[in-house]
Amino acid sequence: MAEIIPHWLTKQADLAPDKTALELADGTVYTFHELKEKSQSFARKLKRLGVQKESKIGILSANHPDMVIAIHAVSYVGAVAVLLNTRLTSPELDFQIKDAGVELVIGQDEYNKVNADFYTFSDAWKVAESSAELQTEINLDASFTIIYTSGTTGFPKGVIHTYGNHWWSATGSMLNLGLANNDKWLAVLPLFHVSGLSILLRSVICGISVHLHETYEKQAVHHAIMNRDVTIASVVTVMLKDLVGCLGNSRYPETFRCMLLGGGPAPKSLLEQAKERNMPVFQSYGLTETASQIVTLSPADALQKLGSSGKPLFPAQLKIDKTDGAIGEILVKGPMVTKGYYNNREATEKVIADGWLATGDLGYTDEEGFLYVADRRKDLIISGGENIYPTEIEGVLAAMEAIDEVGVTGKKDDKWGQIPVAFVVVNDTSITTEAIMEFAAQRLAGYKLPKEIYFVEKLPRNASNKLMRNKLLQQKKV
Amino acid sequence: MAEIIPHWLTKQADLAPDKTALELADGTVYTFHELKEKSQSFARKLKRLGVQKESKIGILSANHPDMVIAIHAVSYVGAVAVLLNTRLTSPELDFQIKDAGVELVIGQDEYNKVNADFYTFSDAWKVAESSAELQTEINLDASFTIIYTSGTTGFPKGVIHTYGNHWWSATGSMLNLGLANNDKWLAVLPLFHVSGLSILLRSVICGISVHLHETYEKQAVHHAIMNRDVTIASVVTVMLKDLVGCLGNSRYPETFRCMLLGGGPAPKSLLEQAKERNMPVFQSYGLTETASQIVTLSPADALQKLGSSGKPLFPAQLKIDKTDGAIGEILVKGPMVTKGYYNNREATEKVIADGWLATGDLGYTDEEGFLYVADRRKDLIISGGENIYPTEIEGVLAAMEAIDEVGVTGKKDDKWGQIPVAFVVVNDTSITTEAIMEFAAQRLAGYKLPKEIYFVEKLPRNASNKLMRNKLLQQKKV
Repeated sequence: MAEIIPHWLTKQADLAPDKTALELADGTVYTFHELKEKSQSFARKLKRLGVQKESKIGILSANHPDMVIAIHAVSYVGAVAVLLNTRLTSPELDFQIKDAGVELVIGQDEYNKVNADFYTFSDAWKVAESSAELQTEINLDASFTIIYTSGTTGFPKGVIHTYGNHWWSATGSMLNLGLANNDKWLAVLPLFHVSGLSILLRSVICGISVHLHETYEKQAVHHAIMNRDVTIASVVTVMLKDLVGCLGNSRYPETFRCMLLGGGPAPKSLLEQAKERNMPVFQSYGLTETASQIVTLSPADALQKLGSSGKPLFPAQLKIDKTDGAIGEILVKGPMVTKGYYNNREATEKVIADGWLATGDLGYTDEEGFLYVADRRKDLIISGGENIYPTEIEGVLAAMEAIDEVGVTGKKDDKWGQIPVAFVVVNDTSITTEAIMEFAAQRLAGYKLPKEIYFVEKLPRNASNKLMRNKLLQQKKV
Repeated sequence: MAEIIPHWLTKQADLAPDKTALELADGTVYTFHELKEKSQSFARKLKRLGVQKESKIGILSANHPDMVIAIHAVSYVGAVAVLLNTRLTSPELDFQIKDAGVELVIGQDEYNKVNADFYTFSDAWKVAESSAELQTEINLDASFTIIYTSGTTGFPKGVIHTYGNHWWSATGSMLNLGLANNDKWLAVLPLFHVSGLSILLRSVICGISVHLHETYEKQAVHHAIMNRDVTIASVVTVMLKDLVGCLGNSRYPETFRCMLLGGGPAPKSLLEQAKERNMPVFQSYGLTETASQIVTLSPADALQKLGSSGKPLFPAQLKIDKTDGAIGEILVKGPMVTKGYYNNREATEKVIADGWLATGDLGYTDEEGFLYVADRRKDLIISGGENIYPTEIEGVLAAMEAIDEVGVTGKKDDKWGQIPVAFVVVNDTSITTEAIMEFAAQRLAGYKLPKEIYFVEKLPRNASNKLMRNKLLQQKKV
């Protein structure tokens, strides 16, 4: 039965009106009461702009209080927020906007670069409030957000999150990490990714204060953990590496109890450096499809099980499609797992069956049930926490007339973990690296651009002529 | 959509196999792994005894590890546990057993007093295990427990709790009180009441250790809080009064963070005495129908709002059927609220409409939304945390030939809060108090027996000849 609950921000504002909901690096504070009032006001402005229940509203912004307000405002209208990655190019954004049927995009001034009705936050605030009624309750089965994720093949797919997905993710996190009245969660990961968004929703569901950083500056994050009573921070590997450096021989305050590490594998040497410094690092594993972390090391196991992503959060389930501890595909199930992709039944049925989501990632569990992720999705490149699919880059480069064949793979990188590099077979020897880069830059977000381009005679292919991306880097050495 | 989750005890045993699930006053410990193993073993024995999915299984026991195991075993079979109050007389038990269609009662040896198939725990343990499969998952919409509650009129009604009711109650409690890895909850309230049962379910859902007392001995409870690392205890007013006395000028350990007070109104003077001693008392309000507390003071408000029951737990809702802060009936709504009474649509429809449960209790909310309970259900007598309905006692006494009319009401009592007293109009002046008491004792649990009996000429009635119970005590003075 679909559970109906009071609107979660209204409820939290009733329970703890004067508690800090949102705190900025400059010291600005919004209480839960203020956040509710502003979100409801913004919702009434959205209504005046014609936004209705189930309308798809694009949000295109860096981490900014107005983005937080806009996200909650969308829920007060009963609309659906399509969270757009600010690093995407116009063609990439246009695809998502069209695919999701976005009626209106709101965001920061500088991102007014989409082929859609666009309102800057500041213009939207100037709109008069509608007197129409807002949502007072939430149906956990209703859709709330759509976030696009690239797949191993074809175009990006819009992952639908219901309110229930976010609810169960938030309570699952709390059942693992516990909940203290003084909890303050540092949000520096982009709110347009589910890893950042989920911090906002845990905040209103669990009554946790959020310490928001607009952009990632390692010294600023280090300072916040040292001096701003942060108790939990979500980071990706590249940040952890920076923070180990910033910490040096110092130690974090005792009240800082969890550094939740997501976004791809972390080198064991880095985890050991963090352990030597008593950094409370908890590895986790999750996908956009799982509404953030779904497997996380618990405080009790963090030190003993270095390198493991932990156990599936309550009440998630996990299985590996191989037995006896062998490496196989990771499957997950639970009420935090998406019911599917927007308007894409084919893609949905490809990965979800009987409630089990086939992640495409490879891993194994030890005899105590701890997950070790061996390899992320086939050919997936994770660069600074951003997922990059070779097929998407290959598809763009193959459209250049001078290019006959192209293969993309990830290359190890000290700073970013991995960087994408491209191998091309050309039919016009006058074509330059610069020309290829310029072509790509018009079509791909900066983080997806190949950082190196190799001109080769032919690509490694197997007997059925299938590209073997795992052999590309050997090709280079020849 | 009905959420499917892994069996919660299996899940907790996977997450924290070596953590203490259950600890007895004598030091015996069951880990979550052991509790799971024993519960699954007991479930296989129940299956051998013919218990099937959706069978109704009576459980008749004081707080004992076997009772905890039996409750979880019932869930592994997918049956429904009918929790029977050990203090009831045989006729009272027989009514509930028949009404709920109980097929088999299991319990401690001394309670083998029911008209039904009865297995003592020790006999049940001797049964061989069936090899049939057990439940690995839980459907939150499925029924798990039935607990009888007397109503203002007629016979007791069986309140059905789904797994979801218990789940939402447990997470709602945690969202209010927080959750720490060292949490240990003292369970001295009877497990056959929802206030005790809910401790067990919070334990497996949230990974909280339970410190179980078989019977209430004030010095033992005091000792446990002082010396056994208990962090939370559920008590009723009569216990709080005892514990204030036991504490004297001492102070509880700092780690003891919550004394959850339920079961009827507490005198303000007692709350003040507790406050003077820094006892972390959180008043709460709940019914069997709400799967335990549904309104609770938060740690942040406990001192400022003495006398209030707090605010509705996340995600419950509350309203009063009067406006402007006037006293009116308390209505509550939320996923922890029962969907209804077993096999009794009429009673269900009388109190539940549009998801709102009319509690029958009276109260008001202050301008900040804090609930103050003014009066429990019409004529309800609360004696030492047990609910007693005058109509039930009146119905029993009226069946005596010598009694023409009878009225029962609660009288203030220093120890128990209230005690039931009866006013009778007799047609045979030779009838004695002793004879009436003996008649009642065969039919009513001890706590329901009128502690005083007054022989009167007539009962106070209004113009429509309706008994005015609130005038009975004045009658006595005449």
